[in-house]
Amino acid sequence: MTQWVYRFGDGTADGKAEMKTLLGGKGANLAEMASLGLPVPSGFTITTEVCTYYYANGKTYPDDLKQQVEAALAAIENSMGTKFGDPLNPLLVSVRSGAPLSMPGMMDTVLNLGLNTQTVEGLADRAQDARFAYDSYRRFMQMYGHVVLGVDHHLFEDALEATKAKAGVSQDTDISVDALRALVKTYKSIVQSNTGAPFPEDPMEQLWGAVGAVFSSWMTARAVTYRRLHDIPAGMGTAVNVQAMVFGNMGMTSATGVTFTRNPSTGERAYYGEYLVNAQGEDVVAGIRTPQPLTQAMAGSSNVEGKALEEVMPQAFAELVAVFERLERHYKDMQDIEFTVERGKLYILQTRNGKRTAPAALKIAVGMVEEGLLTQEEAISRVQPASLDQLLHPTLDPKAPREVITRGLPASPGAVSGKIVFDADTAERRAAAGDAVILVRTETSPDDIHGMHAAKGILTSRGGMTSHAAVVARGMGKPCVCGAGDLEVRVHDKVARVGSLELQENDTITIDGGDGTVMLGLVPTIDPELSGDFAKLMEWADASRTLKVRTNAETPEDVRTALRFGAEGIGLCRTEHMFFEESRILAMREMILAADAEGRRAALAKILPMQKGDFVEIFEIMAGLPVTIRLLDPPLHEFLPHNDEEMQKVADATGVPLARVQRRANELREANPMLGLRGSRVGVLFPEVYEMQARAIFEAAHEVERKSGDTVVPEVMVPLISSSKELELLKKRIDAVAATVAEEQGKTLTYSIGTMIEVPRAAIRADKIAEHAAFFSFGTNDLTQMTLGLSRDDSGLFMDSYLRQEIFAADPFQSLDIEGVGRLIEIARDGGRRTRPDIKIGICGEHGGDPASIFFCQKAGLDYVSCSPYRVPIARLAAAQAALEKSGYSTA
Amino acid sequence: MTQWVYRFGDGTADGKAEMKTLLGGKGANLAEMASLGLPVPSGFTITTEVCTYYYANGKTYPDDLKQQVEAALAAIENSMGTKFGDPLNPLLVSVRSGAPLSMPGMMDTVLNLGLNTQTVEGLADRAQDARFAYDSYRRFMQMYGHVVLGVDHHLFEDALEATKAKAGVSQDTDISVDALRALVKTYKSIVQSNTGAPFPEDPMEQLWGAVGAVFSSWMTARAVTYRRLHDIPAGMGTAVNVQAMVFGNMGMTSATGVTFTRNPSTGERAYYGEYLVNAQGEDVVAGIRTPQPLTQAMAGSSNVEGKALEEVMPQAFAELVAVFERLERHYKDMQDIEFTVERGKLYILQTRNGKRTAPAALKIAVGMVEEGLLTQEEAISRVQPASLDQLLHPTLDPKAPREVITRGLPASPGAVSGKIVFDADTAERRAAAGDAVILVRTETSPDDIHGMHAAKGILTSRGGMTSHAAVVARGMGKPCVCGAGDLEVRVHDKVARVGSLELQENDTITIDGGDGTVMLGLVPTIDPELSGDFAKLMEWADASRTLKVRTNAETPEDVRTALRFGAEGIGLCRTEHMFFEESRILAMREMILAADAEGRRAALAKILPMQKGDFVEIFEIMAGLPVTIRLLDPPLHEFLPHNDEEMQKVADATGVPLARVQRRANELREANPMLGLRGSRVGVLFPEVYEMQARAIFEAAHEVERKSGDTVVPEVMVPLISSSKELELLKKRIDAVAATVAEEQGKTLTYSIGTMIEVPRAAIRADKIAEHAAFFSFGTNDLTQMTLGLSRDDSGLFMDSYLRQEIFAADPFQSLDIEGVGRLIEIARDGGRRTRPDIKIGICGEHGGDPASIFFCQKAGLDYVSCSPYRVPIARLAAAQAALEKSGYSTA
Repeated sequence: MTQWVYRFGDGTADGKAEMKTLLGGKGANLAEMASLGLPVPSGFTITTEVCTYYYANGKTYPDDLKQQVEAALAAIENSMGTKFGDPLNPLLVSVRSGAPLSMPGMMDTVLNLGLNTQTVEGLADRAQDARFAYDSYRRFMQMYGHVVLGVDHHLFEDALEATKAKAGVSQDTDISVDALRALVKTYKSIVQSNTGAPFPEDPMEQLWGAVGAVFSSWMTARAVTYRRLHDIPAGMGTAVNVQAMVFGNMGMTSATGVTFTRNPSTGERAYYGEYLVNAQGEDVVAGIRTPQPLTQAMAGSSNVEGKALEEVMPQAFAELVAVFERLERHYKDMQDIEFTVERGKLYILQTRNGKRTAPAALKIAVGMVEEGLLTQEEAISRVQPASLDQLLHPTLDPKAPREVITRGLPASPGAVSGKIVFDADTAERRAAAGDAVILVRTETSPDDIHGMHAAKGILTSRGGMTSHAAVVARGMGKPCVCGAGDLEVRVHDKVARVGSLELQENDTITIDGGDGTVMLGLVPTIDPELSGDFAKLMEWADASRTLKVRTNAETPEDVRTALRFGAEGIGLCRTEHMFFEESRILAMREMILAADAEGRRAALAKILPMQKGDFVEIFEIMAGLPVTIRLLDPPLHEFLPHNDEEMQKVADATGVPLARVQRRANELREANPMLGLRGSRVGVLFPEVYEMQARAIFEAAHEVERKSGDTVVPEVMVPLISSSKELELLKKRIDAVAATVAEEQGKTLTYSIGTMIEVPRAAIRADKIAEHAAFFSFGTNDLTQMTLGLSRDDSGLFMDSYLRQEIFAADPFQSLDIEGVGRLIEIARDGGRRTRPDIKIGICGEHGGDPASIFFCQKAGLDYVSCSPYRVPIARLAAAQAALEKSGYSTA
Repeated sequence: MTQWVYRFGDGTADGKAEMKTLLGGKGANLAEMASLGLPVPSGFTITTEVCTYYYANGKTYPDDLKQQVEAALAAIENSMGTKFGDPLNPLLVSVRSGAPLSMPGMMDTVLNLGLNTQTVEGLADRAQDARFAYDSYRRFMQMYGHVVLGVDHHLFEDALEATKAKAGVSQDTDISVDALRALVKTYKSIVQSNTGAPFPEDPMEQLWGAVGAVFSSWMTARAVTYRRLHDIPAGMGTAVNVQAMVFGNMGMTSATGVTFTRNPSTGERAYYGEYLVNAQGEDVVAGIRTPQPLTQAMAGSSNVEGKALEEVMPQAFAELVAVFERLERHYKDMQDIEFTVERGKLYILQTRNGKRTAPAALKIAVGMVEEGLLTQEEAISRVQPASLDQLLHPTLDPKAPREVITRGLPASPGAVSGKIVFDADTAERRAAAGDAVILVRTETSPDDIHGMHAAKGILTSRGGMTSHAAVVARGMGKPCVCGAGDLEVRVHDKVARVGSLELQENDTITIDGGDGTVMLGLVPTIDPELSGDFAKLMEWADASRTLKVRTNAETPEDVRTALRFGAEGIGLCRTEHMFFEESRILAMREMILAADAEGRRAALAKILPMQKGDFVEIFEIMAGLPVTIRLLDPPLHEFLPHNDEEMQKVADATGVPLARVQRRANELREANPMLGLRGSRVGVLFPEVYEMQARAIFEAAHEVERKSGDTVVPEVMVPLISSSKELELLKKRIDAVAATVAEEQGKTLTYSIGTMIEVPRAAIRADKIAEHAAFFSFGTNDLTQMTLGLSRDDSGLFMDSYLRQEIFAADPFQSLDIEGVGRLIEIARDGGRRTRPDIKIGICGEHGGDPASIFFCQKAGLDYVSCSPYRVPIARLAAAQAALEKSGYSTA
């Protein structure tokens, strides 16, 4: 016989904390607390398997469930000395959902169940308080009527308001018992007229109605949406907890509260919580009465009013503190506890690991290690890597007032203020003059890169989380809010509008890329603290992890930031960004417009010293750490202007006739640039481009070795390889440049040549490609695009629909598609190592900073991940968790 | 000791015909003929291994080569009764290249080697003809001077012309012996002054010089190019044949000729060839004297002059005929034979399988089966599948005069005449009125489809072999010449220019898509003959093959053509082409512009009856053969116009405001349409589109079953699947439509649902996808694009360079990339069959009609290939060859 029902109470329980899958979180913890001897009202849990059965069998129950429930109910009666439906001494119960993963507020609850025309009188007698009994009755009818019977809750609320108006009172607590009796009658007729049936009097009918309602609430639209957003499988199901009611509203010696064993906002080791005297649980959260502080310390702080529980009920408080200590030690985590005091007696109704902010998660994890509660490894697993993002950027001063004018997507975290500029050139000019500016655009393009670099933050009215602005801003670690749809940006008029508000160039705004808000004027921010707890946790993480963490960076500023964040090398130095600077793009354009190799060489010769200078600077900063430099990758047309006016400027600047500029731009225009003339194909077609870059790299390496004495070992990375012959050819040319430079310098250099694996064919042919590659770096952005046949720029049209219909479990551009792209990575890894057992393998797509993807990289046995500077700490922590095979706790 | 030298002559030989890799084609066949007892002048072959050694060792020879050559030379001397360098009775030799694969005219030859100041006199004595001897000497000096010594051949030719001018004669043969003596002196001084050294007198020095020159000629630019074009590996190397000279120029009883055992142009069983009396081999091909016909039959035909060898030298002719019969029976193939008659005695200098035209290859193969020379299986392997293309289309009447005005790429075979039109609408209107028109465009786009359908042929000035025009035209089996770069097309002015020639609308032109020529006016054509030999060979092929052959077709005309060509079903019926017709595109546009699903349904309801009609017609024609229908595939923006004028028209026609048309077009515009909102993604996002199509398919199937009694089993194919969930979702919806239609019709239908495998991820996840797919069809066009990260539309910019640098062995859009895409096909096949052992697997990309790719499909164990109608016979033959594992012979 299957056990569908698990009892708890009186110091014993059928279940325990580890049985969350079967009993749900709440049920498992109630069982655990009962076993610990904590004062838990008796009750039982109907398992999640019943939920599964319920949906698999047309909303019916297993045959033997009724019998098991009745037996469990009898046990509660025994324990409480009351009887379900007994007119003189009635047992009342609560019926609550409890899923394996917390879904706060998503599902339904019914309290005070068991009350009817007769038992309400018994309750009144027992409590010696008729008002309390009738108030409980009307609360029950209201909840049950709405949740189980489906009556619009406004009907009940309107009747309640009418009663108060008639009585001339404003508080629920001021309604007289007679008025409550009348209200109960009114509720009965509301139910009768809205459902065509009387309100059920039979407590067993009430109970089954409530159980069915809880199971049904598993599939409400809001629950389905919540699960989708939080990645909770529908097959998991919910349990139902039936528990003897205890009453925090039985007079002034009763109370109810919600507490935390530590401060969930800061992580401080200080009890934290709120309570209300003479109230039921729902009153605390409903906000009708203002809750009072738990402790005197809280009461002493400025923004909490009322007397502390510590002062009002010192005995109950002392018991509660003992429970706090017991539970924290038991669960080794900060607990979120609900309690009720019924006429001086403390009951614990729920405990769970408390949600917390990112700073609190960090402080609690580190604190618990210092207190000896956790090992360092356990502490590592207690902080969600992604949440570190909140700690690395300036954040808005929580105390500062703000005027939010619109919202967009939180595309790149951090809060920043600055003066509005509408174009990249102005941004650059004004930034050079010392102004803090925010670049505001409809959307951005590669032409805007210099302006994005110069700006403190970026705001766009169009584009999603993976738009150009978002991707580049995250790469730069710059705050960005994008897709603020209510914002109308008129770049040419230099004006942006939100409703009737008009923003001009030079107006100051503040953006918070962490939550997508846009505020008028300057809002003060707080700088991140990278020492202390943060540094400690990172140190522990580094001791545990095996994956190396590198960074994707090319500007000196980014490289320094990444080093400060603990990067162990550069995994991706994108050389093309270097060409978009105003001083260089002209030479780049001359190169593209040149009629022959000689013309291209002449133009490239102008770029060589600048490019060499870039590398010198990077090598110097990295001081011997590995630096992987990717040769030119984007299609050449990205360097050419797109309209006639701009082309005329190029024609004027280069002395090339306009017609030729237009013709060349036209020749280079592509139907599918992602799959066009870019990456190594440019290198194959125009050998002089990569030759110039190779020379710049090698000359820079020689120079830095000479000046600093450090050993510089550049790793030259060829992008977009699809065939081993392509790499063989290019490697020969690069080796030839290295040999020439070595001869010129009279000294050989250690360097290696490797390739991106970003074309599916390269993964398939990795064994052959490894013959010419000392390392592989998975460019998972492009590999995802090609493997899924999915353009990142275009998928916005349908990605949402794909996620909603669960075709994709997650956006494959944010979290690696392990089944598809991941499989290709494994194939490439196997092929590469077969040919070259010591081949170094890493990943340098955006996924390199995504914790779930890092877990995959650990499992796949890669050597390193590389990510944008601000993601380096996240990667370090995720890599440590992956090495420990423990996933992070959720934070709020 | 390695044998570097293989002798032949006097009825024996060291080598044989099978040793082509070692001895080259010429050497192996000379050995074979010697062993057969045919009159082959004695000689020897220096092996291809020496060539390999030569290049691997800085152009030096193996130590023991000299000794082996000298011994072989002595054997020739013995055989011929002459002596190399003997002033009285000199042996002269020819030195010729001979690679394992024929490279006609690519490498160098030296004749009459061994002549010097002394031996020329001995030759004169022996021949009793001083003029002959000196003529031979000056020929030798001229060849040797150019080929071995590197002297510009014009210098010799100028001296020869000067000699003739001085003597007042016009023919070489009229130069007196004294003048020739003087000419030889002049040649000597030319060599002295141009090389700084005298012309070598020592015959052995001459011999090694010539051997070295032949080996060196293996790596000349033209030889390298030829090998690249013909896919011959450079590592193969050439052999060198040294053979005793016999002289066709020893007076009027001597002759030399080049012959075929059958007519290489028509395949007729009739000896065919040309000869010259008193001439050396080079004279026949040089074209200075007009060769005479071999047979009296040839002499009797109108366009050959002179007396036949049959008449002039009946004895030698009879011997030659005996050799013909002997060699054809021996080699079981038509032979290309060079012979010389020296003073009445016949010598055979070379035999090889003769190159032939496609019609000749067919006729010879079938004829030889009927003669009992070949089995049917052998005959199948004798015709190159791709060459059938020439037999299926009308061809220009070879006798008709023509005025070629320009050339482009031979994009789609067939010759056709018609009046020029410059736009698709005019093409359609004029074709409807009964005019034969040729659509002339700069390039074509999907908007032009209706015009391409209406036109008899297509001519473009831009685009390559895989441009839109080329691909669509091949699909339609319509002649197309594209990328005619000299043609300047001004569509708006309705004029096209080539140089000074101006073509107006209505001017008649003729295009030959088989060779890319464009001619002025009407050139008569000859229709293809599909019965007779062709039908026989096809019947034999069908008996041998195991792969099924289907077609890619959707218009009734194409479907009928494919059936006539032997298609066994439709493997790809593209439904989108059906929407571009003027009567439908409006409804399609309404659908795209609709604000909601209801609006889309209303528009689709207009298309439903037309779409159903399409399928009724196709099912009727196919009469029970399988029909795979692919649901809508292209991105929606392809159906929207691209400029304001066109958008205004759409706005007017649909009643949708222009601004909304523009906005929608803008929303749907994509950065990489290949990877965008298309295929099943459209189906997922707008369920009503596929639902309408499914309904049309099922209703049509019911209707045709009812009317014809045939069983119609439609195969519904979902494009661009990348995840099993995508297919699962769409299959459910299609199944639901089928159920609804079955209920309406009161009868269930047998149908299957399958998918294209064209996204790399689909290949990787094929095991999961097969859970919902009854069949897989590899869309190798898109699979190639995504696997290689290579846009077909854009690769033109660099494909040429990639082929030239041998990064790609072949254009992956023409011949399947077996190592990359092929590997994914194998992975998908394994995954699919693991889940569903009876899953049907085919290929429907353009590769389905490419013989090399069909060989792969056979090896990979696929069930069928599907190709455009005109490729069906090619596929049938290639599939038969693949099943027999024999590859086709080359045709000329």
